[in-house]
Amino acid sequence: MTPYKNIAVVGKPDGTNLGESLNTLAELLKERAMKVVMETRTAEFTHVKPDRTVPLQSIGEGVDLVIAVGGDGTLLAAARLVAPHGVPLVGINLGRLGFLTDIPADAIRSMVGRVLDGACTREQRLMLHATIQRKGKTVFENVALNDVVVSRGAMGSMIEFSVEVNGEFVYSVRADGLIVGTPTGSTAYALSAGGPILHPSLPAIALVPISPHTLSNRPVAIPSDSVVEVKLIRGQNARVNFDVQSYFDPQPEDTVVVSALKDRLILLHPEGYSYFGMLRSMLHWNELP
Amino acid sequence: MTPYKNIAVVGKPDGTNLGESLNTLAELLKERAMKVVMETRTAEFTHVKPDRTVPLQSIGEGVDLVIAVGGDGTLLAAARLVAPHGVPLVGINLGRLGFLTDIPADAIRSMVGRVLDGACTREQRLMLHATIQRKGKTVFENVALNDVVVSRGAMGSMIEFSVEVNGEFVYSVRADGLIVGTPTGSTAYALSAGGPILHPSLPAIALVPISPHTLSNRPVAIPSDSVVEVKLIRGQNARVNFDVQSYFDPQPEDTVVVSALKDRLILLHPEGYSYFGMLRSMLHWNELP
Amino acid sequence: MTPYKNIAVVGKPDGTNLGESLNTLAELLKERAMKVVMETRTAEFTHVKPDRTVPLQSIGEGVDLVIAVGGDGTLLAAARLVAPHGVPLVGINLGRLGFLTDIPADAIRSMVGRVLDGACTREQRLMLHATIQRKGKTVFENVALNDVVVSRGAMGSMIEFSVEVNGEFVYSVRADGLIVGTPTGSTAYALSAGGPILHPSLPAIALVPISPHTLSNRPVAIPSDSVVEVKLIRGQNARVNFDVQSYFDPQPEDTVVVSALKDRLILLHPEGYSYFGMLRSMLHWNELP
Amino acid sequence: MTPYKNIAVVGKPDGTNLGESLNTLAELLKERAMKVVMETRTAEFTHVKPDRTVPLQSIGEGVDLVIAVGGDGTLLAAARLVAPHGVPLVGINLGRLGFLTDIPADAIRSMVGRVLDGACTREQRLMLHATIQRKGKTVFENVALNDVVVSRGAMGSMIEFSVEVNGEFVYSVRADGLIVGTPTGSTAYALSAGGPILHPSLPAIALVPISPHTLSNRPVAIPSDSVVEVKLIRGQNARVNFDVQSYFDPQPEDTVVVSALKDRLILLHPEGYSYFGMLRSMLHWNELP
Repeated sequence: MTPYKNIAVVGKPDGTNLGESLNTLAELLKERAMKVVMETRTAEFTHVKPDRTVPLQSIGEGVDLVIAVGGDGTLLAAARLVAPHGVPLVGINLGRLGFLTDIPADAIRSMVGRVLDGACTREQRLMLHATIQRKGKTVFENVALNDVVVSRGAMGSMIEFSVEVNGEFVYSVRADGLIVGTPTGSTAYALSAGGPILHPSLPAIALVPISPHTLSNRPVAIPSDSVVEVKLIRGQNARVNFDVQSYFDPQPEDTVVVSALKDRLILLHPEGYSYFGMLRSMLHWNELP
Repeated sequence: MTPYKNIAVVGKPDGTNLGESLNTLAELLKERAMKVVMETRTAEFTHVKPDRTVPLQSIGEGVDLVIAVGGDGTLLAAARLVAPHGVPLVGINLGRLGFLTDIPADAIRSMVGRVLDGACTREQRLMLHATIQRKGKTVFENVALNDVVVSRGAMGSMIEFSVEVNGEFVYSVRADGLIVGTPTGSTAYALSAGGPILHPSLPAIALVPISPHTLSNRPVAIPSDSVVEVKLIRGQNARVNFDVQSYFDPQPEDTVVVSALKDRLILLHPEGYSYFGMLRSMLHWNELP
Repeated sequence: MTPYKNIAVVGKPDGTNLGESLNTLAELLKERAMKVVMETRTAEFTHVKPDRTVPLQSIGEGVDLVIAVGGDGTLLAAARLVAPHGVPLVGINLGRLGFLTDIPADAIRSMVGRVLDGACTREQRLMLHATIQRKGKTVFENVALNDVVVSRGAMGSMIEFSVEVNGEFVYSVRADGLIVGTPTGSTAYALSAGGPILHPSLPAIALVPISPHTLSNRPVAIPSDSVVEVKLIRGQNARVNFDVQSYFDPQPEDTVVVSALKDRLILLHPEGYSYFGMLRSMLHWNELP
Repeated sequence: MTPYKNIAVVGKPDGTNLGESLNTLAELLKERAMKVVMETRTAEFTHVKPDRTVPLQSIGEGVDLVIAVGGDGTLLAAARLVAPHGVPLVGINLGRLGFLTDIPADAIRSMVGRVLDGACTREQRLMLHATIQRKGKTVFENVALNDVVVSRGAMGSMIEFSVEVNGEFVYSVRADGLIVGTPTGSTAYALSAGGPILHPSLPAIALVPISPHTLSNRPVAIPSDSVVEVKLIRGQNARVNFDVQSYFDPQPEDTVVVSALKDRLILLHPEGYSYFGMLRSMLHWNELP
């Protein structure tokens, strides 16, 4: 018996190539007598009438499962909204590759079907919560599944900041920025910036400086129960990004405080999922000697 | 007999700690009966009256030597103006370290004195010239001693561009940007981004992708007589920087065309200068086994 | 009241500059009426007569504290012998720098004194245990505090091996070798090979390929309860190192099985110890903006 | 009219899969009334009787063209023998990929045919010449197309050496070794060790430290007319490799002196060859945005 009754569906914002997959998915859910809750804009791209439409912000409310249809970006955006509700999330990929969305569009009926049967791999993924502190007050806050990135803004020059972990001074850095990332984010922007791959079950947060002026400022992984404070020294044009999707422009002397979100994201994968298999495929690792 | 009669002096823009060094330098030049040509704003920071003041843009005109007083940034800004005039440039460093400015403030009398005697190391440094092409027309152009950097603008997301060398397609890259750098620039931003150190006498241009999405997009060095074309694919927020000091915001589908500047910068160093010695000092390389 | 009665002392093997520090240390222990147990060869370098001498292999038996006098190498060698006994270890550094040995020779009386008073930072460090498997049998085993390194032997060519984690295939790699390292080892060889710095309290094991042929074979950190199997494919000249101090030459098709040692090393630091402060000092990180 | 009359053919040493390609090639040469000179052992793998057989060492003597059949390793070995004779070399690849051998086995008739017609791209490739100096005497010498590698021998520990360029001290390094490489070698071992890609027409030599202890010891490219001296400080187990195919074991205090070989290798490529196209294919660079 399926554990899911109310299923929320959210598609990628621009809707390209979305229709057919949405139709297939929605029909599958209807056949199983499930309630289809669709994000308002997503609903415009399918001819199947959902049982209910909700604004994106409410996508995780009152449902048993959220299905993101698009790419890793679509799933990232959904994750930030879904995690606080403790609802599992699974991703369908309309394109070629995905670190997070592992059901291909042409396997919706079979693979989503099995997930709905409860036959899937269930993972908990660490998320981050960040606040921007100014003179003792919180002026902004948001969450992230991949990373919180403090980086230079429009101007080309480096920014300068100091970092503390649990109140202990770590270093002052001049760099293009700093990525505070989760294991999930370790295969995203942080990997391009030279960070290590952190297995998703590792309770760790990575601090990855972006093009640091001091060559020995190498990536550091710290325990996930740490509190990271990034204080901007010269940051007139700094920017704080959340999953490179949402941002806030801090002022000089603002402090970005990052720690693990209390809630973990519950991420589902189809049967047979292998983290290392996914890495091999995505990073073109050798299969054979 | 000194080869120099008219000496131009340009100080760092904000003037901090500039006065004393300017006084010492200007007095030294006066003692030697040289004509002191001072950049207009620089002249405000010294009590020695120059023979002539000129705007920054004219700093290289009608003089035999230009002395930059400040740091590498001051020298970089001067280099772009001086190189086309074929006038040698030498740098005095007011701070602690410099890849380009190698006369410390407390050694002005002795070391600049020897340079004025003609006792110095004379080097030619490759510079770059770049134009921004839009529908067959040049909409901007500038020169650089370190690098021409095409990078993402204010938004956090990667940019995407294709690169051609001498009309031959090289690759399409998704990255934070691309550094097209000289050997001089190889110890600046490009080094932080993972680029190699290129000896200044090497006739080479480095292509260093910044945090590229594809991990095998490693830095490439090509001959300095190459023409590099960087065509923006997604570049709504792209920016082109020249020595991270001057910039231009291209539009999508603009092409940045970079090649060697016909003129080399003539850079003077005090006697006993050693390129590798400077690297050891700046990069904290080991002296002893 | 001190928690320690029987104190073992082991010095660096070659004895250079060892005498004076040993004398100071042994006198300090005698003054406090502690029993001085000295490694046999170490005892030759001091004029203080120990209460007992023991061979190196027994340095951790029947004592309450082990003091290593030398450098990080001396402490590493002691750690492999001490950890199984659950006895704390502290290091005195006779040279300039140490990631592990943080009491300078000229501060023995004050800093070791405070440690003996019980005023110190007590840390648990993950260690590794490795076996070499051949046709189902263990042909060698050893432990390591820093790393177990499978690398090419005398011949210059790469080796080839496949890696499994908990029985799951990870990849096949052609490389100079693979470092299986602890957080402690993350600032040793693994750092030179491009690995990340892992905070000592992180329950992680790092897999760091050495000069891998495939550029996307980046370092991976996995949970410390993992079992790592490295199977040699072409390994005629392979070698397995333990902390780069002890080694074994495997045959082709041998498998190196690495997992966490059940016992953690208890490592003591003098009061005021800061892990990040040590990193700043050792890696020349910036203190000031 | 073809410029070639006497054609030497050398196959890969172990002969696997060599026969069919050798037959096709030899028949093609015979049809064109060319003289087939075959390396003695290679001749055992074909049923076509060569006009002459020669030992490997003489493969470049008295011929107009040398064809290597195998992989990059086969071509490398031939290059060291062929370059001093000024004879062009071209490679047939029996496997999947090659940085140097760009004629696939199934295109021998068409592509080699066109090369024999003179329709090909002709390139000059820098090679290195190295001697081992001991107390003023040369105790060994050899040449290399990719690299001369000074590295640790069988024991796992780092080696220590100092480097001079043109008699100027560069640095002392503790590392697994140092790669002194050509532009051709920049896509071989040096790339795995973190070196830059150097375009083959760049007159440069790369110095790439392997896993250096000091993190700022980054790769350096110097002009190809430089003389590089690597003096072993602790090198009991050091080894000097030439293209990772031939080696010599130096003693402590030996000096390895490397400079450009006076002769360049003349390397032929089939029509339509593109260096960047080859890189895109070999390194899986993106073609499309």
